[in-house]
Amino acid sequence: MAHDLTTLFCPKSIAIIGASRSPEKVGATVLKNIIASGFKGDIYPVNPNASNIGNLWCYKDTASLPVIPDLAVIAIPVPDALDVLTQVGEKGIKNAVVFSAGFKEAGEEGKKLEDRLIEIAQKYSINVLGPNCLGFVNNLCPVNVTFGEVVSASGNLRFISQSGAIASSLFDWCKSNNVGFSQFVTLGNKAVINENDVLEYFRNTPSMAVGLYLESISKGSEFLKLTAEISKTNPVFLLKPGKTRAGAKAMLSHTGSIAGEDAVLEAVLSQAGVIRCLTLEDFFDLSRSFAWAENIKGPRVAIISNAGGPAVISADAVINEGLELAEFDTETLLKLQQILPRSAGILNPVDVLGDALADRYAKAADVILANTEVDALIVILTPQVMTQIEKTAENLGNLSKKYRKLIFCSFIGGSLVAEGEQKLNELKIPHFRFPERAIWAVGKMWWYKNHQNLKQSITQNQIQQVPNLDQIKQIMHQATPNEIIALAGIAVPDSAIVPGLQEAKGFASKCGFPVVLKLFSPTLLHKKAIGGVITDIENNPQLESAWKELESHHLDIQIQKQVPPGVEVIIGVKKDPNFGPVLLFGAGGSYAELICDRNLCLLPIDLPRAKQLVAKSKIYSFLAESSLDKLYETIVRLANLALNIPEISNIEINPAIVMSDGVLAVDCKVLF
Amino acid sequence: MAHDLTTLFCPKSIAIIGASRSPEKVGATVLKNIIASGFKGDIYPVNPNASNIGNLWCYKDTASLPVIPDLAVIAIPVPDALDVLTQVGEKGIKNAVVFSAGFKEAGEEGKKLEDRLIEIAQKYSINVLGPNCLGFVNNLCPVNVTFGEVVSASGNLRFISQSGAIASSLFDWCKSNNVGFSQFVTLGNKAVINENDVLEYFRNTPSMAVGLYLESISKGSEFLKLTAEISKTNPVFLLKPGKTRAGAKAMLSHTGSIAGEDAVLEAVLSQAGVIRCLTLEDFFDLSRSFAWAENIKGPRVAIISNAGGPAVISADAVINEGLELAEFDTETLLKLQQILPRSAGILNPVDVLGDALADRYAKAADVILANTEVDALIVILTPQVMTQIEKTAENLGNLSKKYRKLIFCSFIGGSLVAEGEQKLNELKIPHFRFPERAIWAVGKMWWYKNHQNLKQSITQNQIQQVPNLDQIKQIMHQATPNEIIALAGIAVPDSAIVPGLQEAKGFASKCGFPVVLKLFSPTLLHKKAIGGVITDIENNPQLESAWKELESHHLDIQIQKQVPPGVEVIIGVKKDPNFGPVLLFGAGGSYAELICDRNLCLLPIDLPRAKQLVAKSKIYSFLAESSLDKLYETIVRLANLALNIPEISNIEINPAIVMSDGVLAVDCKVLF
Repeated sequence: MAHDLTTLFCPKSIAIIGASRSPEKVGATVLKNIIASGFKGDIYPVNPNASNIGNLWCYKDTASLPVIPDLAVIAIPVPDALDVLTQVGEKGIKNAVVFSAGFKEAGEEGKKLEDRLIEIAQKYSINVLGPNCLGFVNNLCPVNVTFGEVVSASGNLRFISQSGAIASSLFDWCKSNNVGFSQFVTLGNKAVINENDVLEYFRNTPSMAVGLYLESISKGSEFLKLTAEISKTNPVFLLKPGKTRAGAKAMLSHTGSIAGEDAVLEAVLSQAGVIRCLTLEDFFDLSRSFAWAENIKGPRVAIISNAGGPAVISADAVINEGLELAEFDTETLLKLQQILPRSAGILNPVDVLGDALADRYAKAADVILANTEVDALIVILTPQVMTQIEKTAENLGNLSKKYRKLIFCSFIGGSLVAEGEQKLNELKIPHFRFPERAIWAVGKMWWYKNHQNLKQSITQNQIQQVPNLDQIKQIMHQATPNEIIALAGIAVPDSAIVPGLQEAKGFASKCGFPVVLKLFSPTLLHKKAIGGVITDIENNPQLESAWKELESHHLDIQIQKQVPPGVEVIIGVKKDPNFGPVLLFGAGGSYAELICDRNLCLLPIDLPRAKQLVAKSKIYSFLAESSLDKLYETIVRLANLALNIPEISNIEINPAIVMSDGVLAVDCKVLF
Repeated sequence: MAHDLTTLFCPKSIAIIGASRSPEKVGATVLKNIIASGFKGDIYPVNPNASNIGNLWCYKDTASLPVIPDLAVIAIPVPDALDVLTQVGEKGIKNAVVFSAGFKEAGEEGKKLEDRLIEIAQKYSINVLGPNCLGFVNNLCPVNVTFGEVVSASGNLRFISQSGAIASSLFDWCKSNNVGFSQFVTLGNKAVINENDVLEYFRNTPSMAVGLYLESISKGSEFLKLTAEISKTNPVFLLKPGKTRAGAKAMLSHTGSIAGEDAVLEAVLSQAGVIRCLTLEDFFDLSRSFAWAENIKGPRVAIISNAGGPAVISADAVINEGLELAEFDTETLLKLQQILPRSAGILNPVDVLGDALADRYAKAADVILANTEVDALIVILTPQVMTQIEKTAENLGNLSKKYRKLIFCSFIGGSLVAEGEQKLNELKIPHFRFPERAIWAVGKMWWYKNHQNLKQSITQNQIQQVPNLDQIKQIMHQATPNEIIALAGIAVPDSAIVPGLQEAKGFASKCGFPVVLKLFSPTLLHKKAIGGVITDIENNPQLESAWKELESHHLDIQIQKQVPPGVEVIIGVKKDPNFGPVLLFGAGGSYAELICDRNLCLLPIDLPRAKQLVAKSKIYSFLAESSLDKLYETIVRLANLALNIPEISNIEINPAIVMSDGVLAVDCKVLF
């Protein structure tokens, strides 16, 4: 594949293979769309049964084209589509859009056809978009190479959608909401070109928000690098259906159970600065927000409402979404007092009262937007007897131009407010049916802005060497997890697997009481729950009775020097098949899953990043400050151990005990 | 107040005091609305400056009315409204609607006016609705006594809204969505009539769903009794803005901290069978659902979609909302195979493919709805090239009539799908812009149905006597919490507050080692975190060094016989000022707040209810089965102690240790 997609998405000439006069055919619709989009380049219809289509000359086949066009659009069914792709390759055309369905999505037979398509694309170095896709729109070119109904002005959004159906919904939604986009690419089966290729192309084109609808993420690490790069300057938001439910299959480690696939996705997206949408509504709401809104500068939100209840609801939502209610200074309060009736509420949220006309809304908004302590304004309206809905919208339009601050509206009702909504759409002020949705969107915009401020990055850390690496590699399949971890430079209490009571007694007399006796098994997750851990063994008689108790399980028995009291934490690394190794830190011990203190970080990790990770944990406030540095070190060492030994799929310490004078890895687990 | 509201909400005659010819006046609008609503009774306009309004004779004042009308509508400003109310009382009119604002909501002065209004209402036994309200609509009468824009057919909903603004939004929304209601009452300031009075009235009128928008809940226990009663036969859903954020003020007990005001509200509503809405969108979505939908019989949901992604999203949502994906039997699968193309997905969710016409949707829906294993059908549509939006809606309308099963739709897009939405509204099939919202609503309907099945009730339990009650009352202000709890029949470990090391040694030699030494203070919440608890003291030298450590805090010191290992739980009772005493059970110990195992129950509680409560806790699976009965007993005893001593505002055991052979209350706290 030739990686430069410039001539694909902004071609100077297009051949349409399967172009047609019959209006119901895909080949007719795409031709109509290309012409209607104002495409300035040359169009070459290819159809063996026509000499012209409209006033365009029609060619018998690809070979007879008078030039090598930049792009071939393949609008004919399988299996002929494959022969045509070969002809396209032979002609030397480097870009193709394949609409045809019946490939991988249609089962085994289709999968074979798709493999063949990939071979042809590789042989001739063709950038193939699709198959089974709806094509793309590039309003910057302009060109509309889809067979959908697309009426869209150019605008500040770029979309990549794996699904043509979602694209159709978005086209319809954009049109009726006056939302424009600059580029819209549907991926279909991603046989050749995937989201990463398109993101790579977007990276070098004008700066605007990117909305991603992906049913699968190709090459996770590459995806994260690209989105992290783009999100430095432009918001990226993603909807990915199909949260994996891990409940069904048993988990072999706490890390696996706490950091399920969806938790990993959540963490890595967040680290890359990608805003995650959990619902279709989220995705549409953010599209609207990023299409029109000014960039938010801070988290301070003011609210104006003509109804008390929705104002209170919105104030709650502001806090829930991690935003702040702006506090008005005396000057602002005095001004509001002057322009509002006596019984109005002048503290934020501002209640302009049920009889507020458009003018009162405008005056209040003007005062509030002028306040430098306000970063965003939410305007709520309910259609009461005297409410001037359209006029209020118009006034807000003027203020939006004047202040260039973020104004989000929620006019709550039905057909009365629909006119206001339409006016707001014309004025490009984001409107949401319910105030909570507006505030959710502001919250996400602020999260993104804040992430930019933190200047986090996915790849800033180096993998470091691990002590005794060669020795570890030699013994790792025979040694106990504690031995491996000790070699890697992590403190563990004295312990041994003992074959009999005598050896246990020997251990105790050497290392001293109190000791702990526990079952040892690589697959046993909840030892404590089945009585497999006996602590506080103070002398030989107690050791004897403990031994008798555990013996009955017929498993290996481990004896360990008892660790002084401290706080139990879990530190684990699991290798995600798509995104790579991820580290988990949180509250540990038997209740780890209950507390669900889920703090994840893509590896590699360094000490400052480990510090950040620990600081955001729930258990943080319970940890002795004197041992924090030791804890960060333990985290980084475990991470490096996992990174240096690719065979390890999962490694965890649970619990590690954080005492006032150090950290001890009490119970460890290594899965290969 | 005369409690029967029948003549208020279904009057035979109405006097409108402040009736007016000027169309912009409230007194004109309400007159117009009453006439337009088709009110069959007599109307008496009262206005000193007019002899007639339209073709109605106009009276100078209330005294000159020729009859005593059932209802007086007061549409004149304060303070005159109060004089008029007195005249209404003197005339012997028993019901009044007061629109006038400027009462409690307007500050101190207004509050005085409102107190005066209440006095007058009490003196003359007038049922006053308002003041500061929008009035009411009763489509069963029919009569529209509001000054808002209300165009609503009669329908299967009843609303009570404290806010006139929200009522305006709902009126507008109902009209444009073809949703009808039978009764709509706005409460305003609730000076005389509150939601409980209206609910009491609703209880005796025809059976349909009740939507409540309340900014405050009056008399919590009464409210719960009424809603629990109504929800036995009819769904009740509530939106209450203003979640209290407890973060700001320090909490004196774990119970107070875990069971904040909002958690209590959540728990008591759930116990009463009231569906709680958290957002305005929730409220509108449930209004639509209960207006039209058949009652759901079970949790099994089928999905039909012409797009794969939204189908996957919806399948996830089904699980998230506590529903199940229906499993199709072989017969259903074979039928679907016959009618759908080869590459369609016939397993649930069913993918009818992007080229599905209305007929294919209908055939698939027909097969699925005929399946007795399906309780609800979600139909998802994206507007693709060939999609027949309106026709699909029509077909679903026919199937809805045929099967009388719940069908919820989500047609995703903009203006193209808007026509489908309108058609669905005409056919009274609930449509949601996004599939997740449809499934959320189905989930709530099923939760409600399930609650009905469980036949829970708020008041089934009796308060039981507590052993040693008189003795407890005598000593409770001097005794330690452990002593009080022990007297109430709950097992506690031996313990004593000891003035010096000698006494501590005496305790240990009497009760035996190991012992625990801990700081004793009624206000100290996190003893362990500050090193205020020393366990595993095995002998006198250890006791001496522990004593030295704790002495430095200059607090009382408690010595306790060490409890064998077990699972730490919290059992606490707090008295909610509005809803009364509530019991908390969950994971306890130092990490109680982290685990946030929040299981609440309104008191009184009996053993079966205690069992239910424990069974739904997170910590449940960690508890020794052999001690569960003891645990239920401990819970009921603590509850009865709190109920029998009204002075106790807060009582908790944290932790109680659940061992394999019993339960011990290790650390207790009583607040008065």
